[in-house]
Amino acid sequence: MTRYALRIEYDGTGFVGWQRQDNGPSVQAVLEQAASKLAHGQDVTSVVAGRTDAGVHAEGQVAHIDLPGRLAPEVVRDALNFHMKPQPVVVLAAALVDADWSARFSAIGRFYRYCILNRRPRPALALGRAWHVERRLDEHAMDAAAQTLLGRHDFTSFRAAACQAKSPLRTLDRLDVRREGDCVLVLAEARSFLHHQVRNMVGTLKLVGDGSWSVDAVRQALVACDRGAAGPTAPAEGLYLTAVRYPVDPFAAAGCPSGNFR
Amino acid sequence: MTRYALRIEYDGTGFVGWQRQDNGPSVQAVLEQAASKLAHGQDVTSVVAGRTDAGVHAEGQVAHIDLPGRLAPEVVRDALNFHMKPQPVVVLAAALVDADWSARFSAIGRFYRYCILNRRPRPALALGRAWHVERRLDEHAMDAAAQTLLGRHDFTSFRAAACQAKSPLRTLDRLDVRREGDCVLVLAEARSFLHHQVRNMVGTLKLVGDGSWSVDAVRQALVACDRGAAGPTAPAEGLYLTAVRYPVDPFAAAGCPSGNFR
Repeated sequence: MTRYALRIEYDGTGFVGWQRQDNGPSVQAVLEQAASKLAHGQDVTSVVAGRTDAGVHAEGQVAHIDLPGRLAPEVVRDALNFHMKPQPVVVLAAALVDADWSARFSAIGRFYRYCILNRRPRPALALGRAWHVERRLDEHAMDAAAQTLLGRHDFTSFRAAACQAKSPLRTLDRLDVRREGDCVLVLAEARSFLHHQVRNMVGTLKLVGDGSWSVDAVRQALVACDRGAAGPTAPAEGLYLTAVRYPVDPFAAAGCPSGNFR
Repeated sequence: MTRYALRIEYDGTGFVGWQRQDNGPSVQAVLEQAASKLAHGQDVTSVVAGRTDAGVHAEGQVAHIDLPGRLAPEVVRDALNFHMKPQPVVVLAAALVDADWSARFSAIGRFYRYCILNRRPRPALALGRAWHVERRLDEHAMDAAAQTLLGRHDFTSFRAAACQAKSPLRTLDRLDVRREGDCVLVLAEARSFLHHQVRNMVGTLKLVGDGSWSVDAVRQALVACDRGAAGPTAPAEGLYLTAVRYPVDPFAAAGCPSGNFR
């Protein structure tokens, strides 16, 4: 068997999320069904860096699969893309990795971008791709509040009830808020996140942006270690998994280094 | 009657184009049906700056309509957006204009962006939003060729057979090609364009980008004044009407100046 790292882009709109579920189509099922065609019809199980929720998009998800024989990575990429057609899921790059390399456990950084369409008119071009917030947001106040969440903390206040992580401790390395035209972008980086952590942080920062909360209130919500103390969960459709970092970029050798760490 | 200028965003994917046609839904019909609700059920006819083709998108189309009475522009904007729901068409801004102001005839500049997704894997997130070209394009050669088209010329070589303009003479003010990651962008500006002119220029520049044509061949195609001398028409889905310029920006007074002239 040969192990391949895969960098994957998808539009999460029509999916129940990354993970296989009984209630609808998943990105994982699309990938694994295509992969089984390269494994003589045998089942193939993928391991993924970020198990994105229903409606969450990816520009740079990373997964790994094991396939029999030793196909060239470009052949694996193109064959998977052929078999996944016409689903909105594509392998951007494939790379050979060692048998003990894991898309999930070898990862040392996960990068997310959250897009808020902040204008009165509803989205047309950004439909399903952004959270529509009509009231004008103060991105500077949001950014100031975001900075109070950096570092190693108990993030219980921003953790979904269904979160399966053993510990609520996480180290948040980056949480920047900036405006680009009608879009307010939130850029988040950590070794790993709790379930819904990014969306819960964004839903809380939005309360600062629209004037409902002070900047200090976000820090107080963190310290409370109580999900009820923070704001609501921002919708899935504005969230993009943009990149995953590894100690050595597996795609660099393939001439496709993981680019978008913004 | 009161005349309103409207700045409009739409996803052209499901439409036969701006203009009403018998063979399917048009953006014009969506707008005019909503407008008739504000005119006590009377028919309303719109006039538009750029009659975009099927599949072409708009970030900043401009149209005008006449409505009875004198509603505040914000009320017109919100009511149109309400009645156009759930179509992917929205009015970004509405402004009062004089009865002799025309979205079409008062316009002095039209701005288009064309997006080529230049990578081997097919698009997932950019599906229906870009032209997918697998072979690596040389954006510098494309840009050099583009510059040879600037100025006032007979653009017959880049004009659709169905073009209804009286003269093939046009003045091309800007045609820039640049790369942003996997996207090769073509930015075009002129007082007005012939039918399919932008798409025919892009289809020709692509031949330079992929090495099929020399930079000089584009200038020769222009001088030939023969549609058969230029390249094929690039697909509609990569084209965006981004902005329309007027001697006085009608939306500036409404606090929504036309922003995106890139």
